[in-house]
Amino acid sequence: MPYTAPLADFRFLLPRLGLPEIAATERFAEATPETAEAILTEAARLCESVLAPLQRPGDLEPARLENGVVRTPPGFGEGWSAIAEGGWIGMAASPEQGGMGLPMLLTTAVNEMMAGACLSLQLAPLMSQGQIEALEHHADADLKAQVLPRLISGDWSGTMNLTEPQAGSDVGALRTRAEPLEDGRYAITGQKIYITWGDNDFTENVCHLVLARLPDAPQGSKGISLFLVPKYIPQEDGSPGEANSLRVVSLEHKLGMHGSPTAVMAYEGATGWIVGAPNGGMAAMFTMMNNARLGVGTQGVGVAEAACTMALAHATERKQGRTAKGGAIIEHDEVRRMLAEMRADTFAARAITLACGAALDMGRATGSEAWTARAGLLTPIAKAFGTEVGARVADLSIQVHGGMGYVEETGVAQLWRDVRVTSIYEGTNGIQALDLVGRKMADGGDAAKALIAEVAAGAEAARQLLPDLAEPVLRSAQLIQAATEALLGRDMAHRQACAVPYLRAFARVLGGHYHLMAAQGGEAGRTRLAGFYIHRMLPEAAAHLTAMGAGMEDLTDLTAEDLAS
Amino acid sequence: MPYTAPLADFRFLLPRLGLPEIAATERFAEATPETAEAILTEAARLCESVLAPLQRPGDLEPARLENGVVRTPPGFGEGWSAIAEGGWIGMAASPEQGGMGLPMLLTTAVNEMMAGACLSLQLAPLMSQGQIEALEHHADADLKAQVLPRLISGDWSGTMNLTEPQAGSDVGALRTRAEPLEDGRYAITGQKIYITWGDNDFTENVCHLVLARLPDAPQGSKGISLFLVPKYIPQEDGSPGEANSLRVVSLEHKLGMHGSPTAVMAYEGATGWIVGAPNGGMAAMFTMMNNARLGVGTQGVGVAEAACTMALAHATERKQGRTAKGGAIIEHDEVRRMLAEMRADTFAARAITLACGAALDMGRATGSEAWTARAGLLTPIAKAFGTEVGARVADLSIQVHGGMGYVEETGVAQLWRDVRVTSIYEGTNGIQALDLVGRKMADGGDAAKALIAEVAAGAEAARQLLPDLAEPVLRSAQLIQAATEALLGRDMAHRQACAVPYLRAFARVLGGHYHLMAAQGGEAGRTRLAGFYIHRMLPEAAAHLTAMGAGMEDLTDLTAEDLAS
Repeated sequence: MPYTAPLADFRFLLPRLGLPEIAATERFAEATPETAEAILTEAARLCESVLAPLQRPGDLEPARLENGVVRTPPGFGEGWSAIAEGGWIGMAASPEQGGMGLPMLLTTAVNEMMAGACLSLQLAPLMSQGQIEALEHHADADLKAQVLPRLISGDWSGTMNLTEPQAGSDVGALRTRAEPLEDGRYAITGQKIYITWGDNDFTENVCHLVLARLPDAPQGSKGISLFLVPKYIPQEDGSPGEANSLRVVSLEHKLGMHGSPTAVMAYEGATGWIVGAPNGGMAAMFTMMNNARLGVGTQGVGVAEAACTMALAHATERKQGRTAKGGAIIEHDEVRRMLAEMRADTFAARAITLACGAALDMGRATGSEAWTARAGLLTPIAKAFGTEVGARVADLSIQVHGGMGYVEETGVAQLWRDVRVTSIYEGTNGIQALDLVGRKMADGGDAAKALIAEVAAGAEAARQLLPDLAEPVLRSAQLIQAATEALLGRDMAHRQACAVPYLRAFARVLGGHYHLMAAQGGEAGRTRLAGFYIHRMLPEAAAHLTAMGAGMEDLTDLTAEDLAS
Repeated sequence: MPYTAPLADFRFLLPRLGLPEIAATERFAEATPETAEAILTEAARLCESVLAPLQRPGDLEPARLENGVVRTPPGFGEGWSAIAEGGWIGMAASPEQGGMGLPMLLTTAVNEMMAGACLSLQLAPLMSQGQIEALEHHADADLKAQVLPRLISGDWSGTMNLTEPQAGSDVGALRTRAEPLEDGRYAITGQKIYITWGDNDFTENVCHLVLARLPDAPQGSKGISLFLVPKYIPQEDGSPGEANSLRVVSLEHKLGMHGSPTAVMAYEGATGWIVGAPNGGMAAMFTMMNNARLGVGTQGVGVAEAACTMALAHATERKQGRTAKGGAIIEHDEVRRMLAEMRADTFAARAITLACGAALDMGRATGSEAWTARAGLLTPIAKAFGTEVGARVADLSIQVHGGMGYVEETGVAQLWRDVRVTSIYEGTNGIQALDLVGRKMADGGDAAKALIAEVAAGAEAARQLLPDLAEPVLRSAQLIQAATEALLGRDMAHRQACAVPYLRAFARVLGGHYHLMAAQGGEAGRTRLAGFYIHRMLPEAAAHLTAMGAGMEDLTDLTAEDLAS
């Protein structure tokens, strides 16, 4: 499918979402405007010319298991090589191990473009990125030296092994065992499911990060440790040696993402190295997950962009009915409404994911706890809102295409099928909302209140110039502020019962904030789009907050019998 | 997939939505409570035991074209026969031609069950039902006598041929030609696309209703006539004779509904009979479409029911995490929230489709223009809301299933793929909204205002007993009343730009009305579910109306360039 990178949006947003401040830090001094521009144009070229042509073959010729070996779709190996050679796998990784050491702000932009061009392939480097970050934070120096350069170069790839049949969202219920060996290594035994890119035929080794229990480990999530278990055991010189005792049992038949093999993995006394402290696996996992969660929200934005582009092209080309301007269906207001919702939502989600990346960068570069808390707060919002926008925009793209949208050859149906999983994996969007009202508000709501205060201050500042846009944003900030206070006054059960509408309202308000910012950028089109969002889409926030304010009893009193027809 | 018919809901709703009043008319005197119960239980048995087992085979072994002949999935022929033998194709058709002459209220309940059990097969009798109604209203006596008994018995099946490559939502742009022959018949030439169930291998003939232009017909939709074009030309005794000059060119590769062949049809001087007056095809088409639109809304409800049942079963069986009551995921409030939204929405959509059927019945039985206008008003709401609920509930069912929902074997992904087309065909949901604010308010809004007045009166009456539920419904009625007045005061361009949020708000308010009615039914579970809907979902209406009230300029001022990134 054709893909066009949203360079205009990136060029508009990066300077406004913190790139200058990030480049002013010592750590990211290389992230100059010139570097950013070079990164964006080079990544756009890769995505448009190399990755986008792989999108449809990946759907039509799914990854498959042949005699225990995964065969990937035609062209995926070349696509992986192109991503690796561009340095994109390790663009945020430490330069000491071969990474580019660039900010997450830029990495997020590049990840978005790769996801929009070919989601099922992009998922492979995203997995490696998560593993790189986990190892950078938690592995010992030897393991880092051995593994990181190979992951960063793309010679090896990485996976995450969390889920087991009885342990999905409840990771603490996992049963995979790790037995210490005499040489300091471990023997890993168990079955893992839903292992994304569990194997491939284009890297010389696959590093599995596996959560497992040591003997006599405490029950639940406090007794989980993390192990690196390679497909081939490295030899002295680091090159892959004998095959480890693990195998791909089967691949899932999925609704979408056919290009990406989702494996059931069996570990049968496989050799592994511990990563981090014994029973400290959850902490390492959260490092990996937090990175991956922003990455997954970004996937949603990438798919939304692709869906927007296709719908706009169709709507300007397809003639139907009589209009003043020649009859393309974009001249029908109902079609334009859909296109406007798609574009406005995509912009809002893009701004939120980029802002999350920028906060991570500032936290890392300055050590500021406020920035780190900001990043933590934005992560579940970026993940849930980004993926919901991806799904919603792909859905609207089908609708704009009418009957053609339901025909697979058109390509939008694939976007819709592929992106659906992003609301589920790396913690369902419900889990994200629980994270937001729980862990991310354990600071007494300081991070949330600080962000809301910025939204309010931005609206106050815009009041003179754009009262028609600033007033509704200001009111929405006041509403979410009141809702936050109300939530902080209640117990966790109550918070959890209100979590999803709260997250959705928060995201809508942030969308209003970034649209209002954009409206002041001197581009009339952005001001018009902001008007559409603020007047037509932001009101949804109030509905979510009204629902939330209704309290939890309407929900908790319902029995299973009430929910049957 | 297992399917359980929602008999409890039907038993609760039919007496409250007009069955007694309908059975009190002469036309529908046979629709006694005993007959209704027999119909429901017999149809439920068919759906649960015969049709539901065809759901998955229909997806895995799609209908295909072999040497010009359509081969349907295994078991579909037997399924069609079972539907035909039960009399379900012609249950609303005139007894004079072999139909059961039963109310649309009951037909809607049965159609919903069949759709929930196996949507791709149910679409075939739905097409025949639409054709039967069109012929009953517009064909001459000879044609009726020849065709109707065979359509009703299921020996023949029917299709609708509207769309052409350049004429989708804009039917008036069609180019298929009809040349008069000397014997009063016509020669039809042209290509039609997206022809649902365009052919099959289980009926002895297929009757195509084809829209075409006579020579020298006026431009646009005023120059369209309707023709019946059979696959085989009937002999003297009515049995199928020689093959007509038409053929299936190809079948679409679709996102879902794999069991239902969607054909490109070529007519090459095919013999046809005119139905209705020359250039009167649009009127006949609207008869067929209005019936089919309620039928399609009902399809959405059927799929929603199936998705609810599967999600509830999963949520009560799947253990995950620690809860007080044993750890099934339904004990987590976030899962319960999704199940409650699914159930509450399904109930609301079911009530709206049944109310639409009941209004049709009262209009037909009494000749009351008010009832006919009520049916006309409810039809686009039933179609758009019913199908949006189908899509939303299927989506939530995937989410409740987590990773399993993304695996095709689970079956909910198929529901989601299959139901997606219902928002597109028989007039996209955007077209439904235009119909609502245009043709259906051409009466100066009388029908809309009368229905809103009933909602308000119902809420007034419930105020003493259930103030907590009645007050929000009353307020929502006042809001939609004000929005309706505002809309009526504006020109059509403005109305159209506000059409979709208006329809959605109207549907939400009607949902509040029927939930409030249910809350007074003496069943505590229904009262609790009503509380959830009214407090948590009804507030969405206000958001839609706020968006609408923002006016159209935010939308109409946007240019195509503004909508690019």
